[in-house]
Amino acid sequence: MATSLVAQEQIEPTLKKIYQTALLDGQTYPWLAHLSNQIGGRLSGSLNAQRAVEWGKEELDALGLDKVWLQPVMVPKWIRGTFEYANIETSPGNTINVPVCALGGSISTPLTGIRAEVVEVQDFEELKALGEEQVKGKIVFYNRPMQADLINTFSAYSGCVDQRFSGAEEAARMGAVGVVVRSMNLRLDDYPHTGSMSYGDLSLRERIPAAAISTNGAELLSSMLALNPKLKFYLKQNCKNLPDVQSYNVIGEITGSTYPEEIMVVGGHLDSWDLGDGSHDDGAGIVQSMEVLRIMKKINYCPKRTLRVVLYMNEENGQRGAAKYTELAQKNNENHVFALESDAGGFTPRGFSIDTTEEKLKTIQSWAPYFEPYLVHLFVKGGSGADIAPLKTADNVLAGLRPDSQRYFDFHHAANDTFDAINKRELELGAATMASMVFLMDHFKL
Amino acid sequence: MATSLVAQEQIEPTLKKIYQTALLDGQTYPWLAHLSNQIGGRLSGSLNAQRAVEWGKEELDALGLDKVWLQPVMVPKWIRGTFEYANIETSPGNTINVPVCALGGSISTPLTGIRAEVVEVQDFEELKALGEEQVKGKIVFYNRPMQADLINTFSAYSGCVDQRFSGAEEAARMGAVGVVVRSMNLRLDDYPHTGSMSYGDLSLRERIPAAAISTNGAELLSSMLALNPKLKFYLKQNCKNLPDVQSYNVIGEITGSTYPEEIMVVGGHLDSWDLGDGSHDDGAGIVQSMEVLRIMKKINYCPKRTLRVVLYMNEENGQRGAAKYTELAQKNNENHVFALESDAGGFTPRGFSIDTTEEKLKTIQSWAPYFEPYLVHLFVKGGSGADIAPLKTADNVLAGLRPDSQRYFDFHHAANDTFDAINKRELELGAATMASMVFLMDHFKL
Repeated sequence: MATSLVAQEQIEPTLKKIYQTALLDGQTYPWLAHLSNQIGGRLSGSLNAQRAVEWGKEELDALGLDKVWLQPVMVPKWIRGTFEYANIETSPGNTINVPVCALGGSISTPLTGIRAEVVEVQDFEELKALGEEQVKGKIVFYNRPMQADLINTFSAYSGCVDQRFSGAEEAARMGAVGVVVRSMNLRLDDYPHTGSMSYGDLSLRERIPAAAISTNGAELLSSMLALNPKLKFYLKQNCKNLPDVQSYNVIGEITGSTYPEEIMVVGGHLDSWDLGDGSHDDGAGIVQSMEVLRIMKKINYCPKRTLRVVLYMNEENGQRGAAKYTELAQKNNENHVFALESDAGGFTPRGFSIDTTEEKLKTIQSWAPYFEPYLVHLFVKGGSGADIAPLKTADNVLAGLRPDSQRYFDFHHAANDTFDAINKRELELGAATMASMVFLMDHFKL
Repeated sequence: MATSLVAQEQIEPTLKKIYQTALLDGQTYPWLAHLSNQIGGRLSGSLNAQRAVEWGKEELDALGLDKVWLQPVMVPKWIRGTFEYANIETSPGNTINVPVCALGGSISTPLTGIRAEVVEVQDFEELKALGEEQVKGKIVFYNRPMQADLINTFSAYSGCVDQRFSGAEEAARMGAVGVVVRSMNLRLDDYPHTGSMSYGDLSLRERIPAAAISTNGAELLSSMLALNPKLKFYLKQNCKNLPDVQSYNVIGEITGSTYPEEIMVVGGHLDSWDLGDGSHDDGAGIVQSMEVLRIMKKINYCPKRTLRVVLYMNEENGQRGAAKYTELAQKNNENHVFALESDAGGFTPRGFSIDTTEEKLKTIQSWAPYFEPYLVHLFVKGGSGADIAPLKTADNVLAGLRPDSQRYFDFHHAANDTFDAINKRELELGAATMASMVFLMDHFKL
């Protein structure tokens, strides 16, 4: 069919234009330089998060989209406080400082800190096997490392993160006084990695403080425990949960020329942890998502479907932005045919993990040759992203950009997740790869 | 056929063991830590190059291979000298220093340096169009940047490196007094990148000094020239070519159990430039090649064919090691059925570029599913490596490991090519990917 052939012939030149625009005339790198270096870490509820909202809105306004708006959402506010500190007392009066940071959502220690013996475990099973008498009054040290022989480092993360998320709850139920968790990091270094945790349904007075220790710190503590199982660990932190505050998802859209009621979302999360400046998690995803719309304008591509960028608030410790966006989408009967999230770092894009029907997955996989010149090969069945996952329907397409994952957990949730860890070309290639997928989704009727 | 089925069934578990050994019990990272941090930059003919030869031999000896030997080869010796310095004189008495480094093989300036007007060109065509009268007595500034929209950065490098390699020769023929070349770097930064250059058949007295300028320096010089085309550039360097000296290729082998006369080579180059410590170029390739043999021993795999590791000397400025190895291989009627080089950095492996017959290429491409779990997808026709290319015959297989190339030219031949730019997992994955390909080449009869 002639029309279809003409349409086919537009695909390769359009993808080429998309990549050229990203690499020769891109905006991701200067955008991220601003977000990372001029604003910085932007935990939900913080002043920086509010500055990021204002910056996001201003930049989207400047793109000349059809609509830009803020979507109000109440978010949790947790603050790290003014100190966090730990040491290992190897013998009375002899201590070694170790790098720790409070886990997000943790309570404070008493003002004078806690000093207690340590019980080291690999997992909850081992903890439970110990029995209450061996745990009571002690600090539980979860030291299960990420599994280094898993090629996808996110699988290694999934296999460990229960220690961080539920470690305090499990330990508190057995009478522990605190929890120290080995950082989710495949590398041995001195950065403690924070992240979300939950006390489940524990009452306020049952809760115990939880901190992450750097991987080097964890190795040291473990060796010291082997020498002296009675050593004491000292932890002091004064983080705090405060009442919820007002924040916003930042949204912009190019209204579809032919099917305006069919919505395609690209997005990432605007909040970050507070230790670094959140360049990889998820500043990269934010500027790449914004870049998708900028590129479409730049190459004069008018999407047939509505293309919406969503800068989600509060992915890290609550996912309230995602919940609010989904709630309103459902209330307004919006039809999300496609959503794509970038929240796995600004590294060289390898492809996509895709959550849809088998049939649609096969169709998308048939597009692989279009991506071959850009060295993008992965089109696998899998999860999409924490912010867009709630948009799932029986037959829409959700996808996550899958960058190279080897370095991601070197930086994830740690003080070294900063702009210098970003490579400009890798960031730009990610944006172009997202824009190409959006173009193909818009071009073909799935 | 039953045997073949059994054989097939061994493939996946063997690949898994290879990757596990590299990632859980690898030697690449500590080896490279030594080569980079305890030895450092190792330009051919230097004391460090000799130390690297001794280290390589010792480490191969310790692996318990069937044979380890040094293969003598005479190599060129060029030294950077005691200073290299440049500035832009924007008006009489006002200067701005810019980062430069001598190109490898360049002659010195006079002791007092050279100060001359600058003519900026993009390529040799533009230079020739200017005519001798506009070039005579001036410094030629080659400022053609690497093309940022090429996805494979090696293609961008190929498109620029003529400026560095032959720029001095071309400019000297037109009466220029010196040459400054924009660094082969896709990033804007302050590192000048050295590399090899040639004067062709110019006589000693016709030669002119050649230096690289950092990309930021090149941008500055170009802007300054736009403001004042008469500005003067000052260059001073006292590098020197010395007589050839004795050096060595370092070679080790596991003799084939069934077809000992069929040789498979893995290798990289042991020499590096002198500015950094050569971690990516090509310390990574060296330790990955050594690791291939170590892994085979570790997993108790006895190759049917002879597996040889060659640590080539003098790839950077002469390729004398490669020439010597090839000369002796031919003289001894050795049958090299396969050779694999790693000389493109220690980044995440993406696959291989393969130089062989169409039929064998197709067979190798049919192995792609074995590499899928390791996220290795590229099996493309292309060049192999500078050291192994001379081993080509009508029907053998030459291949180059192809790591992700986005960051490579940030470091290539510059002072920041150091151990901290290496990611342990990426390095290990490269070694495992090489070992897997060697295993498959040995397992199947091509």
